[in-house]
Amino acid sequence: MKIDGIDKIIIKRLVNDARTPILTIAREVGISGAAIHQRLRKLEKSNLIEGYKLVINPKALGYTTTAFVGIFLDASNLYSSAIKRLKEIPEIVESHYTTGNYAIFIKIMCKNNEDLMHLLNKDIQNIKGVSRTETFISLDQQIDRQITN
Amino acid sequence: MKIDGIDKIIIKRLVNDARTPILTIAREVGISGAAIHQRLRKLEKSNLIEGYKLVINPKALGYTTTAFVGIFLDASNLYSSAIKRLKEIPEIVESHYTTGNYAIFIKIMCKNNEDLMHLLNKDIQNIKGVSRTETFISLDQQIDRQITN
Amino acid sequence: MKIDGIDKIIIKRLVNDARTPILTIAREVGISGAAIHQRLRKLEKSNLIEGYKLVINPKALGYTTTAFVGIFLDASNLYSSAIKRLKEIPEIVESHYTTGNYAIFIKIMCKNNEDLMHLLNKDIQNIKGVSRTETFISLDQQIDRQITN
Amino acid sequence: MKIDGIDKIIIKRLVNDARTPILTIAREVGISGAAIHQRLRKLEKSNLIEGYKLVINPKALGYTTTAFVGIFLDASNLYSSAIKRLKEIPEIVESHYTTGNYAIFIKIMCKNNEDLMHLLNKDIQNIKGVSRTETFISLDQQIDRQITN
Amino acid sequence: MKIDGIDKIIIKRLVNDARTPILTIAREVGISGAAIHQRLRKLEKSNLIEGYKLVINPKALGYTTTAFVGIFLDASNLYSSAIKRLKEIPEIVESHYTTGNYAIFIKIMCKNNEDLMHLLNKDIQNIKGVSRTETFISLDQQIDRQITN
Amino acid sequence: MKIDGIDKIIIKRLVNDARTPILTIAREVGISGAAIHQRLRKLEKSNLIEGYKLVINPKALGYTTTAFVGIFLDASNLYSSAIKRLKEIPEIVESHYTTGNYAIFIKIMCKNNEDLMHLLNKDIQNIKGVSRTETFISLDQQIDRQITN
Amino acid sequence: MKIDGIDKIIIKRLVNDARTPILTIAREVGISGAAIHQRLRKLEKSNLIEGYKLVINPKALGYTTTAFVGIFLDASNLYSSAIKRLKEIPEIVESHYTTGNYAIFIKIMCKNNEDLMHLLNKDIQNIKGVSRTETFISLDQQIDRQITN
Amino acid sequence: MKIDGIDKIIIKRLVNDARTPILTIAREVGISGAAIHQRLRKLEKSNLIEGYKLVINPKALGYTTTAFVGIFLDASNLYSSAIKRLKEIPEIVESHYTTGNYAIFIKIMCKNNEDLMHLLNKDIQNIKGVSRTETFISLDQQIDRQITN
Repeated sequence: MKIDGIDKIIIKRLVNDARTPILTIAREVGISGAAIHQRLRKLEKSNLIEGYKLVINPKALGYTTTAFVGIFLDASNLYSSAIKRLKEIPEIVESHYTTGNYAIFIKIMCKNNEDLMHLLNKDIQNIKGVSRTETFISLDQQIDRQITN
Repeated sequence: MKIDGIDKIIIKRLVNDARTPILTIAREVGISGAAIHQRLRKLEKSNLIEGYKLVINPKALGYTTTAFVGIFLDASNLYSSAIKRLKEIPEIVESHYTTGNYAIFIKIMCKNNEDLMHLLNKDIQNIKGVSRTETFISLDQQIDRQITN
Repeated sequence: MKIDGIDKIIIKRLVNDARTPILTIAREVGISGAAIHQRLRKLEKSNLIEGYKLVINPKALGYTTTAFVGIFLDASNLYSSAIKRLKEIPEIVESHYTTGNYAIFIKIMCKNNEDLMHLLNKDIQNIKGVSRTETFISLDQQIDRQITN
Repeated sequence: MKIDGIDKIIIKRLVNDARTPILTIAREVGISGAAIHQRLRKLEKSNLIEGYKLVINPKALGYTTTAFVGIFLDASNLYSSAIKRLKEIPEIVESHYTTGNYAIFIKIMCKNNEDLMHLLNKDIQNIKGVSRTETFISLDQQIDRQITN
Repeated sequence: MKIDGIDKIIIKRLVNDARTPILTIAREVGISGAAIHQRLRKLEKSNLIEGYKLVINPKALGYTTTAFVGIFLDASNLYSSAIKRLKEIPEIVESHYTTGNYAIFIKIMCKNNEDLMHLLNKDIQNIKGVSRTETFISLDQQIDRQITN
Repeated sequence: MKIDGIDKIIIKRLVNDARTPILTIAREVGISGAAIHQRLRKLEKSNLIEGYKLVINPKALGYTTTAFVGIFLDASNLYSSAIKRLKEIPEIVESHYTTGNYAIFIKIMCKNNEDLMHLLNKDIQNIKGVSRTETFISLDQQIDRQITN
Repeated sequence: MKIDGIDKIIIKRLVNDARTPILTIAREVGISGAAIHQRLRKLEKSNLIEGYKLVINPKALGYTTTAFVGIFLDASNLYSSAIKRLKEIPEIVESHYTTGNYAIFIKIMCKNNEDLMHLLNKDIQNIKGVSRTETFISLDQQIDRQITN
Repeated sequence: MKIDGIDKIIIKRLVNDARTPILTIAREVGISGAAIHQRLRKLEKSNLIEGYKLVINPKALGYTTTAFVGIFLDASNLYSSAIKRLKEIPEIVESHYTTGNYAIFIKIMCKNNEDLMHLLNKDIQNIKGVSRTETFISLDQQIDRQITN
């Protein structure tokens, strides 16, 4: 599917705020609201748009700490079973199988350093096959956005 | 702000799909749609909800490769100026100041390994003060979600 | 509990030397010894003050060498049992569960390099689950103080 | 100076709590309070006892986070000048010149991760000659004691 | 066996393109084609020339990604049995026993990152004794030649 | 371009030995030599076949040692100029821009360890911008082949 | 035992060449040969002098390669048993228990890289408990002397 | 030069103790002292024997600590000038140019940890071009011998 400059503006506006009125976008690009609406319908039908999501503020829920954890396994072939167990831990928001020296690389959100200690020591390190973890805490996040180009 | 179990269900449903009809949620929790609506308004006014976003599929835009890059700087105090330049590179979707041995840790999306090479060699490594980068590519992502508890 | 500038001076003086006469402090801050005494009682009742300790000189006891040891375990969940055993070794003066790549990070005092060898090889490395240690010796310590602000 | 078993008990009791009554110790070891007193005076005159200190609770002052920071310098001979600057930062409670790969290894206390970020990025990394730091946060401390043997 | 400057030119031309006509080389070095032919026969009989190979373009076969993988084994003496299994994986084009910290160091060709993930996770990491791998992907290859001097 | 099973056999035979007689292959696959010849011409015209090369035996030239060298640069943007210089060193047979922590990763052939020392110390480390190298020597190579599938 | 400047000259001369005639030294320091002789007897009786050794040239025996090998053990408490086995390998000329991350650190002499491969793979890595080795080869040795001050 | 079993015994005995009487060896191998003498003269004339050395006991001179130091240079081409300066430091008994990640790898003898601190901080780290050192101390040496085979 081909998308043009107007489609890109529509996407950028709605990625920022899905409640942006159609007419605001229409005025910006200089075509009618109906045309914007039609384009949006077409985009929604394509696989370009995954959906609309409510975005919550993790800090308001008390999740003030983001950390990355590199996980080492006793044997690399424990990957699938370990992933199954990691999925049951809601604080884990991303898991990656990466080049480099970790068997699994995860991103976790936690309430504070004590909560992180608990998560590592009770939840993650008790998973069968996890031999060792290497954690680094994000002390500051300056960029957090989607790709829209 | 206190939130109860019903608020949590509302949030979870809309985090999954912001277009979930109010009535569907109302039926699930067994209270009226108006009550759901009222709760949602209250949640939206709190700092718990950051907004609504259209979520795009990076793969449909050709971004099939996710990579993490640890950046080393000539001197740690170049952090602010380097961040300013990194913000101009749209493929960088996250930047973190982390404990551990990197000055800056970023997450990038790119179209393929050639694109990654270009990004690293032309864009990131030409930023003044960047002495060295260490890249690891995500070959598989099994978990990708928000925290909702 | 709120503490003011006078409280801070009292604390700093007694952190340096718990035997500093009340009257010396009284003269310094320009209020009566009785008032200092009263403030001190209040501080002692708060959780701000942990107590008074005799401080010994480890070098006079022959402990001339400080070392830090990163401990790797066969499995991360051996943390609690290993800590129990480490507590029985009096030369270990601190133990930390840290981010980064060690399972346990300890600070030890020893009489000389031979004593350190013995401690590592006989005591620490014989603890069940300890697979590997990484030691670095402090050759010079320039700062050693409490936080008082 | 030779110390015997009774001296050791006196020291251990006062290391735990410098306010332990002489008579309590006297009763424990079965000699008179005057004898304990005399021994204590002799110990105080030796270089074995550094003094008495009020011990404050860093958590009550808001210092909930302990971290270790390995500092790399542009050139190893910047050690002395860097130490001079580090001494001006009150959150740094220990500094060591260690074997291993750091130029300086420090222990710092901070109020939270944001405070740590500030300390690293504004205070430590702005010291002339500091090229890079490697931080690991203590998530749990199980052993914290003096050597008394 | 001694080789002179003319032999070296013959070798260099045929290393570049084994179909270079004898006469082209003859003209270049200024001796007869028959003499070139005779020298070539002699070189072929020596152990200097391993043979002639058709060289295929891996990219035309879809192999666009080159990666290096450092393999760690549970025990170093599993080297021979692991090599036997690695030989059965056609994507592995080189294997080395190297100084440094890997048990085995291999070069692999794969079609894309997904294929690489499959190779690592299904084929290599399932070999008995493989405990961990460390992968780095070649994003650009500028030099690729034989030694001819 | 599509290739079938017969094409693959032709390629495999000629990758092993470019002098394999057409008739030998013809007999193996059970079609006429002329048909093999025609297929080969078609393959040669496609981009699948890069050409024919004489393969020399580096050991016969005295090159008994293979080594891999990770090169660190003062700044990552010196990549192009460093590559230009590396191309002038005939012992370097491969150069890669890799993920991981090296700026450039090369494969070199040398006559012995003394020759390697010379290459590293005189040739590579004198290139402007090269700050450090990390070498590992191949002590044994068990797999060395092309991909043919 | 106190030694003076004349003793030091005697030692230095004999450390260089144990066959240096007494009279040569005598003339250098300006005292009688008998006095030198007497001093030498006294030094030999002290624990300062370990003895006299014939020094062989390892290169003349074919040992052209020096390497250092860091050995990792399955468990640190296998140190004693591993040392016992290492002593049976004559190519190992030094073994150290070091701070840092190796369980054992050895210096070996070997005839060439092939011999090194054999030593590592057949002899050292087959010792029970050896999980991994990390080798670095000395390509050039500029300093090789005893301490004489 | 060929050496036989009798030569080897002569060498081994004199490597252990250069003062072993010729006759003791003669009796052991069952040939005349004159024959031993003649063989020894021949060996001494070959390049197999470097000479005879008085061996001193470093501990008796107060050198109780052996350490290995990996030196990093600002630029690898500072190797020769750095070596020149290192040669002036008598505590350095070996220097190697090694594969792996150090520019120079040295072995030093020192009197105690304080002496080591001084050597590193004042002598080695003040050499122009030395950017960083990594030290590991030998806590125990079990093997220390020459190769004699």
